[in-house]
Amino acid sequence: MSHVVAFDLMQKDIRLVEERMYAQADNHNPDLQAAIRHLVISGGKRVRPTLTLLVGEMLGGEKDRLVTLAASIELLHTATLVHDDLIDGSLLRRGIPTLNAKWSPGATVLTGDFIFATAARLAAETESVRVMRLFAETLAIIVNGEITQMFQSQGLASREDYYLRIYAKTASMFELSTSAAAMLSPVDEDVITMMRKFGYQIGMAFQIVDDILDFTGDQVRVGKPVASDLRQGLITLPALYYLELHPDDPTMKAITTGSVSEKALQELVRDIRSSGAIQLALDEAKTFVQKALQKIQQFPDHPARQSMIELANYIVDREL
Amino acid sequence: MSHVVAFDLMQKDIRLVEERMYAQADNHNPDLQAAIRHLVISGGKRVRPTLTLLVGEMLGGEKDRLVTLAASIELLHTATLVHDDLIDGSLLRRGIPTLNAKWSPGATVLTGDFIFATAARLAAETESVRVMRLFAETLAIIVNGEITQMFQSQGLASREDYYLRIYAKTASMFELSTSAAAMLSPVDEDVITMMRKFGYQIGMAFQIVDDILDFTGDQVRVGKPVASDLRQGLITLPALYYLELHPDDPTMKAITTGSVSEKALQELVRDIRSSGAIQLALDEAKTFVQKALQKIQQFPDHPARQSMIELANYIVDREL
Repeated sequence: MSHVVAFDLMQKDIRLVEERMYAQADNHNPDLQAAIRHLVISGGKRVRPTLTLLVGEMLGGEKDRLVTLAASIELLHTATLVHDDLIDGSLLRRGIPTLNAKWSPGATVLTGDFIFATAARLAAETESVRVMRLFAETLAIIVNGEITQMFQSQGLASREDYYLRIYAKTASMFELSTSAAAMLSPVDEDVITMMRKFGYQIGMAFQIVDDILDFTGDQVRVGKPVASDLRQGLITLPALYYLELHPDDPTMKAITTGSVSEKALQELVRDIRSSGAIQLALDEAKTFVQKALQKIQQFPDHPARQSMIELANYIVDREL
Repeated sequence: MSHVVAFDLMQKDIRLVEERMYAQADNHNPDLQAAIRHLVISGGKRVRPTLTLLVGEMLGGEKDRLVTLAASIELLHTATLVHDDLIDGSLLRRGIPTLNAKWSPGATVLTGDFIFATAARLAAETESVRVMRLFAETLAIIVNGEITQMFQSQGLASREDYYLRIYAKTASMFELSTSAAAMLSPVDEDVITMMRKFGYQIGMAFQIVDDILDFTGDQVRVGKPVASDLRQGLITLPALYYLELHPDDPTMKAITTGSVSEKALQELVRDIRSSGAIQLALDEAKTFVQKALQKIQQFPDHPARQSMIELANYIVDREL
């Protein structure tokens, strides 16, 4: 993986975001404090708060409010992960034990709820009603997407379904990260719209690459078995492209019924990897990033703008 | 139970609140819509939104914003109940099957999350940053209280612990119901403070009476076994008073370890009922209501003020 300057540049500010996240458990139950500390420490690359800070810096937003917003969004993301891991019964995330692996289901549900509450409190602290509203709407979109997926009759999803699903799952929160930062900055409505689209495109690319990594990634580094989506009957973009190339593949047809042997599954994964499907999916992620970069290029040169370009390129380059 | 005019007066407005609640699932997953309809239909007496509407009406707040606020608070309440029922494994609430009884744990967690999201969205629609902040803080208080209770080393709680617990569980949301209504009304800071205290006192009384009803209530009407709290090792005010009157009762001492036979438990419930403990607890609830009424009496006569007095009296009179 190439070194990404954007993350270095933001490191000091990201630390402020993490401190704001920690502080939310102050004066609360000590077990809760420990849980939140554990969750914050086991956080990932902080792509969402980095985007928030960069967009805000480029557009002249006030630092303190942007840190508050970034902490709010990262806590919202964290809360959804806590509930997701519980629902999926996941014991590891990024190679670190989930809260779910350590605590009872009840304590895990409540900790997720508490983190939602602190995320909402921080969103209110931005003092922007519009940001608050977008925050709540984004949570509704994410959860509605998960429920739709849960109740969906298992079947070979279309690419259209796939885009809707990854918008709800990922791109909606990227949109929040970039457009709420613009809302807190002294800019016109069209800049907010442009930043929303930028976030959308980066988010779509991010999830497509995540879905590619599920096929191509190193099991140890990714922290979960290869093709974990396929194992759950979840058809992502590489598999959808493979299906378009090989519409009669019997294993693909059987996958949504769950009646596929480990051997057949591993063969299918090999076939998908060696087909053109991975490249088609990657091209699509790159197209999203290109569209995102076109938006950014309309702004005058600025270190934050340069970092955003780097971050956007990192999204499609990581681990591939 | 005496007929309560306050509920009649508000019936039309409460219907507006329920419509606002239903509308939150519009354009979302049909299963989610069905779940929300089920939850709204199986709602209780709507004490919290009634309080919000009455306080707002008395203080000259704008009707539409008050309806939005009331729907937000009732949805927040509903979301906490959905997760509570899941955590407790409850299959009935108010004699109606819980969501938990019909759906998988995962779907139940997500539905609760979705309702949190819609409650937060409505809170944002009041366009008051202060209301938003209080909304989020109240959720944090409620959840922190539940987590504290969950992790508390089982032991005979003090009355002080009890008050903290019922504040978190119940009175905090009553405070929200009354003070947020005041925040949306054209009144001074001291009126907001007074309404917050009014809500606090009504809420404390409400929970104490609920805890009394757990001992004295008719099992069929209450919809759960008598002394369900005690069965879970939860010591509420009547039991605390009984313990003060009979510090050496062996069953009381054994109750927190869970090693009590059904026969011993039923004897203990009989003893608590025939001791002065119930009356002492009821006197305390009445004192809270008296304090609440003193606050209301400072306002000029108004039909909403009259309804609030009635509602306050109903809190301690219901089903007893």
